[in-house]
Amino acid sequence: MSDRNNAGKRMYEFAGKIFPLFRSITGEGVRKTLKLIADETGADMKILEVPSGTKVFDWTVPPEWVIREAYIENEDHKRIIDAKENNLHVLGYSTPVDRWVELEELKEFVYTEPSQPEVIPYVTSYYRERYGFCMSENLLRSLPDGRYHMVIDSELIQGSLSIGEVVIPGKSEKEIFFSTYVCHPSMADNECSGPALAAELIRFVSSLEDREYTYRFVFLPETIGSITYLATDGRLALLKERMKAGFVLSCVGDDLAYSMVGSRYGKTLADRALKCVLKGRGEFRDYSFRDRGSDERQYNAPGIDLPVVAFCRSKYGTFPEYHTSADNMDFVSPEGFQGSFDVMSEVIEGLEKNGCYRINVLGEPQLGKRGLYSTISRKGIYDRILVQRDVIAYCDGRNDLFDLSERIGAPLSHILEIVEELLEHNLLDKDEREGE
Amino acid sequence: MSDRNNAGKRMYEFAGKIFPLFRSITGEGVRKTLKLIADETGADMKILEVPSGTKVFDWTVPPEWVIREAYIENEDHKRIIDAKENNLHVLGYSTPVDRWVELEELKEFVYTEPSQPEVIPYVTSYYRERYGFCMSENLLRSLPDGRYHMVIDSELIQGSLSIGEVVIPGKSEKEIFFSTYVCHPSMADNECSGPALAAELIRFVSSLEDREYTYRFVFLPETIGSITYLATDGRLALLKERMKAGFVLSCVGDDLAYSMVGSRYGKTLADRALKCVLKGRGEFRDYSFRDRGSDERQYNAPGIDLPVVAFCRSKYGTFPEYHTSADNMDFVSPEGFQGSFDVMSEVIEGLEKNGCYRINVLGEPQLGKRGLYSTISRKGIYDRILVQRDVIAYCDGRNDLFDLSERIGAPLSHILEIVEELLEHNLLDKDEREGE
Amino acid sequence: MSDRNNAGKRMYEFAGKIFPLFRSITGEGVRKTLKLIADETGADMKILEVPSGTKVFDWTVPPEWVIREAYIENEDHKRIIDAKENNLHVLGYSTPVDRWVELEELKEFVYTEPSQPEVIPYVTSYYRERYGFCMSENLLRSLPDGRYHMVIDSELIQGSLSIGEVVIPGKSEKEIFFSTYVCHPSMADNECSGPALAAELIRFVSSLEDREYTYRFVFLPETIGSITYLATDGRLALLKERMKAGFVLSCVGDDLAYSMVGSRYGKTLADRALKCVLKGRGEFRDYSFRDRGSDERQYNAPGIDLPVVAFCRSKYGTFPEYHTSADNMDFVSPEGFQGSFDVMSEVIEGLEKNGCYRINVLGEPQLGKRGLYSTISRKGIYDRILVQRDVIAYCDGRNDLFDLSERIGAPLSHILEIVEELLEHNLLDKDEREGE
Repeated sequence: MSDRNNAGKRMYEFAGKIFPLFRSITGEGVRKTLKLIADETGADMKILEVPSGTKVFDWTVPPEWVIREAYIENEDHKRIIDAKENNLHVLGYSTPVDRWVELEELKEFVYTEPSQPEVIPYVTSYYRERYGFCMSENLLRSLPDGRYHMVIDSELIQGSLSIGEVVIPGKSEKEIFFSTYVCHPSMADNECSGPALAAELIRFVSSLEDREYTYRFVFLPETIGSITYLATDGRLALLKERMKAGFVLSCVGDDLAYSMVGSRYGKTLADRALKCVLKGRGEFRDYSFRDRGSDERQYNAPGIDLPVVAFCRSKYGTFPEYHTSADNMDFVSPEGFQGSFDVMSEVIEGLEKNGCYRINVLGEPQLGKRGLYSTISRKGIYDRILVQRDVIAYCDGRNDLFDLSERIGAPLSHILEIVEELLEHNLLDKDEREGE
Repeated sequence: MSDRNNAGKRMYEFAGKIFPLFRSITGEGVRKTLKLIADETGADMKILEVPSGTKVFDWTVPPEWVIREAYIENEDHKRIIDAKENNLHVLGYSTPVDRWVELEELKEFVYTEPSQPEVIPYVTSYYRERYGFCMSENLLRSLPDGRYHMVIDSELIQGSLSIGEVVIPGKSEKEIFFSTYVCHPSMADNECSGPALAAELIRFVSSLEDREYTYRFVFLPETIGSITYLATDGRLALLKERMKAGFVLSCVGDDLAYSMVGSRYGKTLADRALKCVLKGRGEFRDYSFRDRGSDERQYNAPGIDLPVVAFCRSKYGTFPEYHTSADNMDFVSPEGFQGSFDVMSEVIEGLEKNGCYRINVLGEPQLGKRGLYSTISRKGIYDRILVQRDVIAYCDGRNDLFDLSERIGAPLSHILEIVEELLEHNLLDKDEREGE
Repeated sequence: MSDRNNAGKRMYEFAGKIFPLFRSITGEGVRKTLKLIADETGADMKILEVPSGTKVFDWTVPPEWVIREAYIENEDHKRIIDAKENNLHVLGYSTPVDRWVELEELKEFVYTEPSQPEVIPYVTSYYRERYGFCMSENLLRSLPDGRYHMVIDSELIQGSLSIGEVVIPGKSEKEIFFSTYVCHPSMADNECSGPALAAELIRFVSSLEDREYTYRFVFLPETIGSITYLATDGRLALLKERMKAGFVLSCVGDDLAYSMVGSRYGKTLADRALKCVLKGRGEFRDYSFRDRGSDERQYNAPGIDLPVVAFCRSKYGTFPEYHTSADNMDFVSPEGFQGSFDVMSEVIEGLEKNGCYRINVLGEPQLGKRGLYSTISRKGIYDRILVQRDVIAYCDGRNDLFDLSERIGAPLSHILEIVEELLEHNLLDKDEREGE
């Protein structure tokens, strides 16, 4: 794992590869994206294809969108906008059209973001049939009077919704779960970053020798995809039985912040693990479930009740580039990706080693005779010898690694290091916490 | 119920009707007050008469006070004060007297409030026999030397203590309980307001179709009355089995504040319901049980343990007019009464609909297909669509309506409205919370 | 007990008596100290002698240190320092030496505290064999070049570790436990004060008629002593079964502060009792278990799990005189000792009377007929009548005396006084709290 420090660079490059694909909640864009992920990771990816019209809980799998061409041309047959140049130009899920209209009428079918006049907004109409185009406010204002030709060559067909699933087995059937979405077109942070991090974590998890847990990664369209996934082939019952902790990955490529969105009551192992690692890295934004917005909504819905939180750098919806053409490959960076990888790989290492440890001698162990007492000096905001002393005191079978980190106020990585040293000296037994 | 907005006016007028009556903890004043309440509400009021001398828990029902006349006259037979003009002029529960004394000796039997020289203070001597008069400090100072005739024509007889009780049955035997007192003479906020609100709530509850709960209203002298009530005819056991929530109504006619006094540990359904409604109306004074003073003392005593809180506008004892002649019909107002009615009727509506609701589909319900998604726009401190989304997320069988309001930070009335809409669309099941 | 106010003076004098003894973790100094404590208290003290080499949990009882002489002389045979004058001059547990060295080499064997140039620091080397001397930085700097004679006439022999134990039986086998240490040489606060307070508490407890609990006092060397004690003759099992609350006494002779160090989770009866009494005396320093340093470390270690806290005036390690010759009989005072005695004797009185009391009448008791209502007037930060009323309300079987004090915000001594009055009037029943 010597190339963990190259993770950010790899992720950035892979995000760039899937950036141009023309995704929607269904269709070829999704399938091509899944194929690239499978190729990148070398993992055995299972593809679920669920037919349009299938009832999934309270919802129905929608038709598949086929989009071949979308542009507006002027009277000189010059294309004003063309989805080939930027796939945000077409309203997502547009029905077909082929009409000449005057400028005034054209405007009824054009979406802009007047408060950010230079960007193309991202707009969709999934659950009501309509057609439309998106462009910058500046471009719209510059259009002279005249006639314009609106062309969208699309179809809504009885196809299927596609989901990719990678399962990497461990010693235990208990699972750590990752979910990310593959339904937005050319946006970098709010689309490509999640699959890129998931791909890198597949590589990381695969490299872990003697893996404790089974790892499940799913790649799906937001909302309808997670609902469909849970409703298909007994996945809900399986996940309820096996999932120890789950993470939605979204907007993990920028370097402006670290954020998490808690589970419904904010108390699951996933909450504690991610919060612990983020605290150890300094400031972060700790959003409550009331600020939720991605698939943590479905995984935490009443009756679903899975222990899932969301991890973001800048949370979706909180940055001006969100859902615009400005969320491009310049908005994300290798450094941003690297930070996300470092957080999630530390979460995984913590979960792998986690348990309620218990000192197996009575009274304080004599550290001197084991050479454990003199390793005093690492400087910092805390003193290693005191952390070691506190780890020993609170390894009483009641605190897991995340509790220890929280209680003692030391980063998880330092707790892990001390616990491993004590394990090497056979001073610790490990209990599983009940109910986890 | 179109005349809910006239409640304040009606209550103010009715308070005025019972204001002049000469009440004490026992006697004709109480009985006349009960009769007026029964007439006003048209309710079937049961009158309990418990004989003087009856042992009630650690106490004994006191003698009945008969008061016919009380005045002081000067040597010219001019009456300086006369209880006929203001019944606060006689010390409550005075024994008889008929003596001529010099001014100096008279002063030993006169109570004033020097810090408020214009008001007549309200003073009683229930548990030690004495006689006396009350007047303003200004009047006392103005009296010239000379002889004065103290006349109190009263008796303490073996009569009875009177309690009025109105029970309005609902579908369930479980009860919502209201208690107010009828033992102070001519004071408006700290006497007449409570019975006036209780009377209006009797009218309101009677008008509720398909009432879930049984409602019990009791009208009694403070302290000895509630003790006597609980000790009589198995009321304590009955109430312990049936009471879901109880409210002492006191000082509910002014418009200076909203206040509540919590139960012994501040955690009952009554605490949560009243606090939720008061929070939804803005600022209020949240007194702990340590600030108690009315019959919540008895209902919460160890071994009694009933889930009772007190509701006030300005809490007894916190305003200068309290226990003086300045607590008159100018101190209360129709607006003050209306506010009290609005609070308590909202509490009742909340309790009637209360339960731990549970969304009965898996995953988030699809709101669009039910037309529940577009009702977005009510402006305010929160966004209705977000409240609806959060109601759905936390309708997981663990939160009742008051929990939802608290957790989501939206007024109870808005939570109720959304829950009713979801019920109409058959999206909710209802659980009873265990132990409530 | 009329001479409780002389406790401070007695303790100060007794501390002065044991101050000069040459203590270490083993050896004659400890034995002489134990003998003086036994003489002072007249108690039946059992002496445990545990042979060097005995395995105690994870540790081994060390050799016994015999020290006969220790000095440095110059070429004129003038003694520069001599342990006879201040026993801090020799490094604790020094092996023997008899060598002439040049000043430069001498310095390798001399410990000073440069930041406090006038004091002799206290230094030991228990778990690694070496020899050395301690002196003030000023003295070291003043030494002229030349040859010096280092003499330490000492031995590490296969002897034993000594522990003193006093058990004063009560009606119950349940125990209140006190532990203090007897292993430091001539220091006043951080050595002599603990045994002096323990001795005075032995006298106090012995004087209590109708004692509820059994009291156990142990006098032992820090760390290895408490480990040895727990590991010997089934003491751990016995204490786990019987101990209700335990207190380590350390640094209790100064008058600069009051402090406590909580137990591992800060929730035991010992925590609550001591915190309650300290709160009632005003400001105090409430250290968490993470700030521990004395034998509360061992008593709270995982698997030991005894309900023990530490009580200090200024906590060990927090004052500049700590572990230097400046911690002498001027640093402590009769007033400082008196305050410690007052705290711990109030703790004992609270524990003796403690229980969850329950009012045995329904409704509020009628205080007037018992003459309990008129005792209104003691002025202070709270009103006695209100405290009495709240004691009655919360004597519902759920709160013990310390809970009442905390909840009502009144000092334990006032709570005790009211509870005793209510007991005299047969208004209270007493429950034991489960699990305590």
